[in-house]
Amino acid sequence: MSGPLAGLRVIDLTNIILGPYTTQIMGDMGADIIKLEAPGGDAMRQVGPARNKNMASIFLNLNRNKRSLVLDLSQSSGLKSFKKLVESADLVIHNLRAKPVAKLGIAYQDLYPLNPALIYCSTIGYRHDGPYGDKAAYDDLIQGISGMASLIGLYQQGAPKYVPTAMVDKTAGLAALNAVLMALFHRERTGEGQEVEVNMFEVMTSYLMVENLWGYSFDPPLGDAGYKRMISPNRKPYATKDGYVCVLPYTDRHWQRFFEIAGRSDLAQDQRFGTLTQRTVNTNALYQLLDEILPERSTAEWLDSFEKADIPCAPVNTLEDLFNDPHLRAFQFFSLVDHPTEGRIRQVGIPSVFSKTPGDESRIPAPRLGEHSVEVLKETGIPEQDIQAMIADGVIFDGR
Amino acid sequence: MSGPLAGLRVIDLTNIILGPYTTQIMGDMGADIIKLEAPGGDAMRQVGPARNKNMASIFLNLNRNKRSLVLDLSQSSGLKSFKKLVESADLVIHNLRAKPVAKLGIAYQDLYPLNPALIYCSTIGYRHDGPYGDKAAYDDLIQGISGMASLIGLYQQGAPKYVPTAMVDKTAGLAALNAVLMALFHRERTGEGQEVEVNMFEVMTSYLMVENLWGYSFDPPLGDAGYKRMISPNRKPYATKDGYVCVLPYTDRHWQRFFEIAGRSDLAQDQRFGTLTQRTVNTNALYQLLDEILPERSTAEWLDSFEKADIPCAPVNTLEDLFNDPHLRAFQFFSLVDHPTEGRIRQVGIPSVFSKTPGDESRIPAPRLGEHSVEVLKETGIPEQDIQAMIADGVIFDGR
Repeated sequence: MSGPLAGLRVIDLTNIILGPYTTQIMGDMGADIIKLEAPGGDAMRQVGPARNKNMASIFLNLNRNKRSLVLDLSQSSGLKSFKKLVESADLVIHNLRAKPVAKLGIAYQDLYPLNPALIYCSTIGYRHDGPYGDKAAYDDLIQGISGMASLIGLYQQGAPKYVPTAMVDKTAGLAALNAVLMALFHRERTGEGQEVEVNMFEVMTSYLMVENLWGYSFDPPLGDAGYKRMISPNRKPYATKDGYVCVLPYTDRHWQRFFEIAGRSDLAQDQRFGTLTQRTVNTNALYQLLDEILPERSTAEWLDSFEKADIPCAPVNTLEDLFNDPHLRAFQFFSLVDHPTEGRIRQVGIPSVFSKTPGDESRIPAPRLGEHSVEVLKETGIPEQDIQAMIADGVIFDGR
Repeated sequence: MSGPLAGLRVIDLTNIILGPYTTQIMGDMGADIIKLEAPGGDAMRQVGPARNKNMASIFLNLNRNKRSLVLDLSQSSGLKSFKKLVESADLVIHNLRAKPVAKLGIAYQDLYPLNPALIYCSTIGYRHDGPYGDKAAYDDLIQGISGMASLIGLYQQGAPKYVPTAMVDKTAGLAALNAVLMALFHRERTGEGQEVEVNMFEVMTSYLMVENLWGYSFDPPLGDAGYKRMISPNRKPYATKDGYVCVLPYTDRHWQRFFEIAGRSDLAQDQRFGTLTQRTVNTNALYQLLDEILPERSTAEWLDSFEKADIPCAPVNTLEDLFNDPHLRAFQFFSLVDHPTEGRIRQVGIPSVFSKTPGDESRIPAPRLGEHSVEVLKETGIPEQDIQAMIADGVIFDGR
């Protein structure tokens, strides 16, 4: 009972990144995640460096604290076993579009009679009853259609580009977790289950418009869309004598101290930079000053001066730098654990601190394909001989 | 009772972007959000185009479905009124570091005796008991220290850059909502309240490492960090004859159809591109082919061919294009509503579809500064004459 979700049972049909991210957080926080994989398994089992087949890096990082059940839902005995599982589940989550869901016979209306209190979540690209409802969606494509790629073009005054991380999948994964938790909360209070749909395009559009609706917050618009400070081309980590540094003087005092440290007290009197309102109008010129001044000293010198003057700053870390970051090391945010078959692996910690129910990132190692098939089906009450018959028929894969 | 969080009462001391994003989603889904502002109000009231003072665009987009209470917690009568509010609250959330929290006297241990079932959430830059616990954090700085800025440098084979959206604030805002909902769920089941801390640096590090831990998933590492396909410089929206297009052939069939459509059947036989494994090794060469072939036709021609051949694709929208997107228009994802003082404004819809408890983005218009001060304090049972005395003393601002 170490996490706030202990006692919850999730049938997880998702694969790739979005849904597995959602359910891994639930597993870290105590839920029982039954990862139902089709024969062949989650494609992410193959992506990234690996010591063994089906156990590549991205899979390991998205599927700890889950149990793997390999079941062929396209066969009637497989579908029947799935429905048996659904009877005792709190949540079914998948990333299938409406057509394959209908073909398999696992829509909400198919499962509701078995378990009226079920929460049923689809995570797909576009709202199923809209014009794009049947379209395939991938991270890159949603970055393009949602305006993210164009924003980078605006910022860099050049071609549209992607953000080099699976931003859409992970943002929608966090949004899906929120939706599922809200539905579960409502169910605790009322007993009522329901269907929830989380759409990547709508999630990203809503996410980007928070600050970027800008002039279009009004009708007729007061100017164009896009938060001007964020897309200022001079907003960037600044080059120093030997690297880069992040600095964000913000208040009047920050800027006065910065001009002082930089030996440019003349600028402290500059009308353009005296107040927040003036600085907002002159953001580009102001940030350009940083670009001109910072190459004069080393990163360490600047960080030291900024820290002493209480000016907000940070180093520019590479991914590898993070493993040696003093803050993250102090509470072992990265830990080394021995996986039963994959040897010593590095795990990322839980980023939120719960005083009473902290969760546990190392409860169950990322499972081998079908590792828990027999265990999970036995728990459901399916007789041993039926399980063995399904294994013989290729409906179940038990990891051997 | 239209949202899954109806009946929840939140005392929201957050400002800027992170926390207001968290609590706006809660408000959309039915919670009663009491936005407690210090005299002067949330700084975002000033950022962006505006028709009136204190009602700028970013504020409008982050603070609908909230009530504004302006209360000076540094005065004893203000603190006393706050504590009265806490007695009936389900959640207190703030973005203050440990020192100002202690100075104001609003730490968890100060509030726990008044309401032992309270959920108390801090959203700050760095875990408070770690070496960086006292450091200030802003979106740009956490993009630098978490490795995000360096990843862009890797992708573009150049200097580190920021993502031009408040990615850290919004990702941590979604993570904070998850943490709070998990704590609330646990409380429904057990009656137990608790303290939760959500840290921007740890959230972003964990978020980025999902796919980027890569070779460092193992110890000793199997290669470096960073998901190779995502940082491939040829992974981008491709220039066409008249613009850009997103396309992501993925399976063997997608690629065969693409080569056919492009009139390059010769490539279908190319050993380098025959299977997913071969394509993964040759990602750069493969994506470079797209870069060479796509300028031959217009965006519309390509999208039409890709759609017909069922190859995953999408247009590259600008932010402004989204207002005319046929899918979003079909269910009025953007709506025009009349704000009582700001005139006609544009609102972004709720991106998740709940079958039973859909929520409502237009329940309460974004509040004027102190608009609900008197209403909220009266509900709490504070006598009218005390409220008037506090207004006269400048402890409360009632919007007039």
